[in-house]
Amino acid sequence: METRALHPPAEVGADLDHVDTPALLLDLDAFERNLDRLHATLAGLPVRVRPHAKSHKCPEIALRQVARGAIGVCCQKVSEAEALVAGGIPDVTIVNEVVGAAKLARLAALAREARVGVAVDDFQNVNDVDTAAADARVILDVLVEVDVGLNRCGVEPGQAAAALACRVAEKSHLRFAGLQAYQGRAQHVRSYDDRRLAAAAAADKVQATLDHLSRAGLHAATVTGGGTGTYLFDARSSVYNEVQPGSYVFMDADYAQNLDQEGHVVRTFEQSLFVLTTVMSHPTRSRAVVDAGLKAHSVDSGMPLVAAVPGARHTRASDEHGVIELAGPGDLSLGQKIRLIPGHCDPTVNLHDWFVCFRGERVEAVWPITARGAFY
Amino acid sequence: METRALHPPAEVGADLDHVDTPALLLDLDAFERNLDRLHATLAGLPVRVRPHAKSHKCPEIALRQVARGAIGVCCQKVSEAEALVAGGIPDVTIVNEVVGAAKLARLAALAREARVGVAVDDFQNVNDVDTAAADARVILDVLVEVDVGLNRCGVEPGQAAAALACRVAEKSHLRFAGLQAYQGRAQHVRSYDDRRLAAAAAADKVQATLDHLSRAGLHAATVTGGGTGTYLFDARSSVYNEVQPGSYVFMDADYAQNLDQEGHVVRTFEQSLFVLTTVMSHPTRSRAVVDAGLKAHSVDSGMPLVAAVPGARHTRASDEHGVIELAGPGDLSLGQKIRLIPGHCDPTVNLHDWFVCFRGERVEAVWPITARGAFY
Repeated sequence: METRALHPPAEVGADLDHVDTPALLLDLDAFERNLDRLHATLAGLPVRVRPHAKSHKCPEIALRQVARGAIGVCCQKVSEAEALVAGGIPDVTIVNEVVGAAKLARLAALAREARVGVAVDDFQNVNDVDTAAADARVILDVLVEVDVGLNRCGVEPGQAAAALACRVAEKSHLRFAGLQAYQGRAQHVRSYDDRRLAAAAAADKVQATLDHLSRAGLHAATVTGGGTGTYLFDARSSVYNEVQPGSYVFMDADYAQNLDQEGHVVRTFEQSLFVLTTVMSHPTRSRAVVDAGLKAHSVDSGMPLVAAVPGARHTRASDEHGVIELAGPGDLSLGQKIRLIPGHCDPTVNLHDWFVCFRGERVEAVWPITARGAFY
Repeated sequence: METRALHPPAEVGADLDHVDTPALLLDLDAFERNLDRLHATLAGLPVRVRPHAKSHKCPEIALRQVARGAIGVCCQKVSEAEALVAGGIPDVTIVNEVVGAAKLARLAALAREARVGVAVDDFQNVNDVDTAAADARVILDVLVEVDVGLNRCGVEPGQAAAALACRVAEKSHLRFAGLQAYQGRAQHVRSYDDRRLAAAAAADKVQATLDHLSRAGLHAATVTGGGTGTYLFDARSSVYNEVQPGSYVFMDADYAQNLDQEGHVVRTFEQSLFVLTTVMSHPTRSRAVVDAGLKAHSVDSGMPLVAAVPGARHTRASDEHGVIELAGPGDLSLGQKIRLIPGHCDPTVNLHDWFVCFRGERVEAVWPITARGAFY
């Protein structure tokens, strides 16, 4: 183990203009409205909320999600779960497979401190998870992951999933807790109807699996899935009883392209996350260069948008630079700080050590992203 | 300031198979051959070597570059320079603009501990750099950045660059040190002849600028540029006297597409950098899923390659997963550790806190990437 010193880019109480750049900004008003809106849109529906903490990697945010009614959070990695439990979250499900004796030993140890769940999609892995739980003398909640169209991890719906669930149920240190059935590909389907149909197709696969489980005498107490793009469809499906949206707290340029029933951009959630960056070069009247590049935001889902500079387009990202084409001369000046809306929020957050949380033009808090880099 | 505990994914002396994943592996034999080859290819040419430390962000590597004859290193950010000086490097040039009073104060303060240079491309910025140097009572080396075809930062070659150089030379706390003239776009031009011509066009622009400087009575002691793709052309150009390759220590899938005179892949440098990852799901005979995704390597220059698994293709990366399509059943098994060759080395390194350095199948060292996240 080693400790490293980290300097936050701002002090609490500072004016936003004194924040060092690049910095990850969180608009607290928008963030809090997003937290509230998730629950408001789900009012009266028979689902629990278990937000995905892979998006924020920050116990401060997880605590606020739980305070608003989330039953806990989910995440992807044992090291993320460790950071969240250390940060005060008592209920964490790893909705992902954990493979290898060292990781499984850490997972089982964590179950002594908090309620911990994990997903499986392989018979041998079920044996290994059970062995780790037995060694640690804990009982682990285990979800069988079903591939409902993502074509990534997970067993086939129906008979195959039920067979794996039976194996889980046989194990002395595992509790069959239900199904993990996340349709990641459906989240960013742009058209409302196509997105609804993709979610419905996933729900059909879940229902077929539930039927097989029922015949095998097994009950799935939890059926979880549903990201920011489909959670409302999933919540209304009558098969999911838990949703796990993550990006809703922040939003990003990718999600901002999803459309509603009328063909307008979905406006349920607001953009609360920005990369603050400084104009560090302005070589021509139409080109400005900012000090945030690939190491400050992720372009895997496309270029960031430029907030509040009409007509400005972020056209190119290199490691430490962003090139912005301007609509009019004089739109930006050297040293000016502007906000970028990241293309994809999750891997962008993972590049930063802090959220600089602001209200109005003042830094209200600086929250450490304690699970940044926690990919073990 | 805050300190955070970081756990390396391996212990010195461990077998490679016991390294936790995802992990950034450095093949020390290949790495050392790369260090040597750079100098071997430059033997007899009138250039100094100042490797770019933005690629590795690691004083341990910078020290080895200096030990092999580099005159120092360059980097992009003040916080990188601070980490490098703290790690024992006495000569660091920031070949990039530094804008804003807070950053400039830190830059000037660093010049009390080491020889420090910086690039400029704006008259007001020259004034600001001089003010910061005067306040700190130091003399800063200043390079005028010339845009030789990258269309990012930098002033136009010729008259414009000479005018800015004159401004630098007038300042009491600045020393006009020469030209920064990096043609980033030329580095990845695939064909040998096209790459050579792109480098030659940049050299012509530098020469025109030198002529203007000469008429203004100014001498550019340093003319620096040249990355891993063009450094040899630049070294032979008779205008550059310093080259700043960075990726050569590691290589990546992008650079592995550059061709030599015969149309074969350039083999001057070997792949020394890998992301070690575990097969965490193997849902079908032709599809395996590994535990490294967008948070463990950067896909901005394309998908990673799969090392040593014939026919295997990494087709899709999500935040924490990589999907690999297999040529034959039985090619991979659950829990197996394999190596990915990153699409782009620099932003990949920035996602990790450690290089796990190995020789043969044994971990020989674990080097901290102390400037990881140092984008201020």
